[in-house]
Amino acid sequence: MLKLRRIAIDTYGANVAFIARTCSIYRPEEFQAFNKIKVVHDGQTLLASLMVVDDLSIVGEDELGLSEQAFGRLGMPEGAMTAIAPAEQPRSLDHIRKKILGHTLEPHQLEEVVSDIAGRRCSEMEIAAFLVACAGFMTTAEMLALTKAMAKVGNKLTWRAPVVVDKHCIGGIPGNRTSMIVVPIVAAHGLPIPKSSSRAITSPAGTADTMEVLARVDLSMHEMQQVVDECGGCLVWGGHVNLSPADDVMISVERPLAIDTREQMVASIMSKKMAAGSTHLVIDIPIGPTAKVKSHGDAMRLRKLFEYVGHEVGLHVEVVTTDGSQPIGRGIGPVLEARDVMAVLENTPDAPADLREKSLQLAGALLENDPALRGGSGYARARQLLENGEALKSMNRIIDAQGRKTDVPCTGELTHDILASGPGKVTGIDCFRIARLARLAGAPMDCGAGIDLFKKVGDPVEMGEPLYRIHACFESDFGFALKFAEEGDGYTIGDDA
Amino acid sequence: MLKLRRIAIDTYGANVAFIARTCSIYRPEEFQAFNKIKVVHDGQTLLASLMVVDDLSIVGEDELGLSEQAFGRLGMPEGAMTAIAPAEQPRSLDHIRKKILGHTLEPHQLEEVVSDIAGRRCSEMEIAAFLVACAGFMTTAEMLALTKAMAKVGNKLTWRAPVVVDKHCIGGIPGNRTSMIVVPIVAAHGLPIPKSSSRAITSPAGTADTMEVLARVDLSMHEMQQVVDECGGCLVWGGHVNLSPADDVMISVERPLAIDTREQMVASIMSKKMAAGSTHLVIDIPIGPTAKVKSHGDAMRLRKLFEYVGHEVGLHVEVVTTDGSQPIGRGIGPVLEARDVMAVLENTPDAPADLREKSLQLAGALLENDPALRGGSGYARARQLLENGEALKSMNRIIDAQGRKTDVPCTGELTHDILASGPGKVTGIDCFRIARLARLAGAPMDCGAGIDLFKKVGDPVEMGEPLYRIHACFESDFGFALKFAEEGDGYTIGDDA
Repeated sequence: MLKLRRIAIDTYGANVAFIARTCSIYRPEEFQAFNKIKVVHDGQTLLASLMVVDDLSIVGEDELGLSEQAFGRLGMPEGAMTAIAPAEQPRSLDHIRKKILGHTLEPHQLEEVVSDIAGRRCSEMEIAAFLVACAGFMTTAEMLALTKAMAKVGNKLTWRAPVVVDKHCIGGIPGNRTSMIVVPIVAAHGLPIPKSSSRAITSPAGTADTMEVLARVDLSMHEMQQVVDECGGCLVWGGHVNLSPADDVMISVERPLAIDTREQMVASIMSKKMAAGSTHLVIDIPIGPTAKVKSHGDAMRLRKLFEYVGHEVGLHVEVVTTDGSQPIGRGIGPVLEARDVMAVLENTPDAPADLREKSLQLAGALLENDPALRGGSGYARARQLLENGEALKSMNRIIDAQGRKTDVPCTGELTHDILASGPGKVTGIDCFRIARLARLAGAPMDCGAGIDLFKKVGDPVEMGEPLYRIHACFESDFGFALKFAEEGDGYTIGDDA
Repeated sequence: MLKLRRIAIDTYGANVAFIARTCSIYRPEEFQAFNKIKVVHDGQTLLASLMVVDDLSIVGEDELGLSEQAFGRLGMPEGAMTAIAPAEQPRSLDHIRKKILGHTLEPHQLEEVVSDIAGRRCSEMEIAAFLVACAGFMTTAEMLALTKAMAKVGNKLTWRAPVVVDKHCIGGIPGNRTSMIVVPIVAAHGLPIPKSSSRAITSPAGTADTMEVLARVDLSMHEMQQVVDECGGCLVWGGHVNLSPADDVMISVERPLAIDTREQMVASIMSKKMAAGSTHLVIDIPIGPTAKVKSHGDAMRLRKLFEYVGHEVGLHVEVVTTDGSQPIGRGIGPVLEARDVMAVLENTPDAPADLREKSLQLAGALLENDPALRGGSGYARARQLLENGEALKSMNRIIDAQGRKTDVPCTGELTHDILASGPGKVTGIDCFRIARLARLAGAPMDCGAGIDLFKKVGDPVEMGEPLYRIHACFESDFGFALKFAEEGDGYTIGDDA
């Protein structure tokens, strides 16, 4: 037995165990052939990958070290006596291999895979193998089973109201913070809309990051329910309520590999919405050359999949296709986006028109689900609630209920304007490049970092006129961002014909 | 800039960088969205994944830590000033994504992928994605291009002789140490046979591990050439001569995932043989229910692929199918296998007949490539050289030239006999289970550990009669092995009809 020791190394979620090369009980080489080891304490087990340490000050000969996350997961105090053993391969690995070989998996097999992924019993390599195999070939029946399996391993919210609405955008468009306008409008009307959102993973801001500029977002399930009871809606971080733990792990593998197949996107989104307990869902699919979906044909195929799964799990789905040719609004990054959102809710004259219009359309589509409302009047009702200030009041109620931030942060003080290289008209903005630039500038970790767009597609520009401003809070980020912008500013300027 | 520090952690080949969470220059969060970071010193760069340390005694605020392997690869002294930056994604990632989406890759794209894999610029996750995508679909043209690309990134051996022979077994059969008998026979005849072999990765012994019981095997390219000049053959470890560095990395991902497609197997083997500079190659494909190839049909398809690649790269290939229904010989594990090999070479009466016969067949097939020998007389010539003691002399010359081990290790002293559960006849031995059992007992790390088979398929057994003996050197391994054997001994005993 070895004495447990917490090694203060953050492995970004992976379970890592450390033993000394001169360990008094085990020889590290004996585990080298095995993918993972099993850490055992009192019947409790944890799977971890192994690193061998040649420095006894890090881990001693009679010690077993665990990385911060693994130590937390095992939940034992330092000094607890632990044993290790070669890990049996998780049973789901057989299913993953079958999938690699082109087989179709049964629902119970997909459940085992998802359960092992959520339980961190699969390595990143195994998850990548599963996702790539699924990307190669997946039946709609498998997609449905995967969705259900993913919903099953997470928490589930329940609501008393007969109609509970929700919205979701498939993502990829910087600045697209419609939820923060849609939720207060719909809540002001009286339809419950318990919205949980993600934090940014590779984008410069998720809705949860932007909302956090104004209010607390890491609410517990109980707190979330209280806010919805009180305000009719909420804007919280979904990670804290743990609706789809398997999805959180899978996303961490999908993103770097940029595996973004239709089936996996549908399973990811629909599993979360099933767990969130909504009855009516509007899905926003932006279409554009640098968006996730490039054509109406692709959007149509994706729509069919959403509708199929929605039908099978008893969730009413309406898909809306929107303009994804450029960023929405002007600000990119939490503080700058929050500024745009509040400008729309406050009806200030210079509020971004595209953000306002898109939010009204989505809110209108959601309001159509109210049986008390005359068909086709959803948009007009949404606009009324925005213009008469009810939406703003609703937003303030939600902010107060979640916990208002007393000192609102400023935009980053290190700024640099990117200038037009020639005169003409803006004919394109690369969503991917702009997002990456804002990310390099520090968003969302520094909520004041990001990009403020001065020109959008269709705007005329003079040579040397500012296209956008980079905001950063730290010199190192500022440097990375400027270098990246120098290599390409993401704008296409055409003839001003 | 941060001061370089070697962190005495062995990450099994992966490049890992460590910085303090309170690092004085960079904030770890800014790199979290990126798959990897780039460590820069004086124009030299190294890609690494990042771990964040909350213990300043491991890595200080002004330090950049590198794991043992990464530190060695960067090749700078401790204290050298280094910078880090978000890593650009390796260009090959675009090709990998294309492959995931079902595209066919061009030779130059496969070259980039292979070069990034060999250069450790791809993560395990990315390599898994590439291999799974290839397992799903790969053209023969891609397989050929992959083979050439893999051979290109490694060292290349050249020989003066017009005919240089080599043999290779696709693996999976425990105890199958024919190379150590074939090489001395062929060398005794006078055909050059510069054999490089692998060490075990998940098996209980590779030829290099078993040969190492008798002689040094980690020869440099120059030493290998000297031994072949002097003895006409050698039995060295291929890893040290670095013939296919990409394969070494890919295998470390393929094994845990058990991705073993025909195309990847062919590319792996043929790339090494191209690099080894042989002109005539015999490939051994064992067929059996627990072997890698289960049927003659599968073996035939595999044979065609070997022949196709051989033809395209100008390497004469002959494929031999052999009995893979059970382990070959009696010993499994380096010392026990070396004992069997020497018994065959010494013509002792109780030498394992199956190992002897199979070796003679393979040696005979290789000797057929000698233009001076009458067609069809290869087998007889091989048998002559074995029986007249020339093969043994040849083996002793090779052992002496490579460096004879003065003290030959013993078998493990912890032993346990596994007994037959009933009377009857042995009808099957599970190669996979027996291999894993020997591995758990400590082979090949403890060269004396392993399994000694007393009964083979077809042998009658009484109830309680020993089937095999487990040898181990350490209590912990011994325990793992006994537990595994209790769960299933790997033998099938049928009616003694």
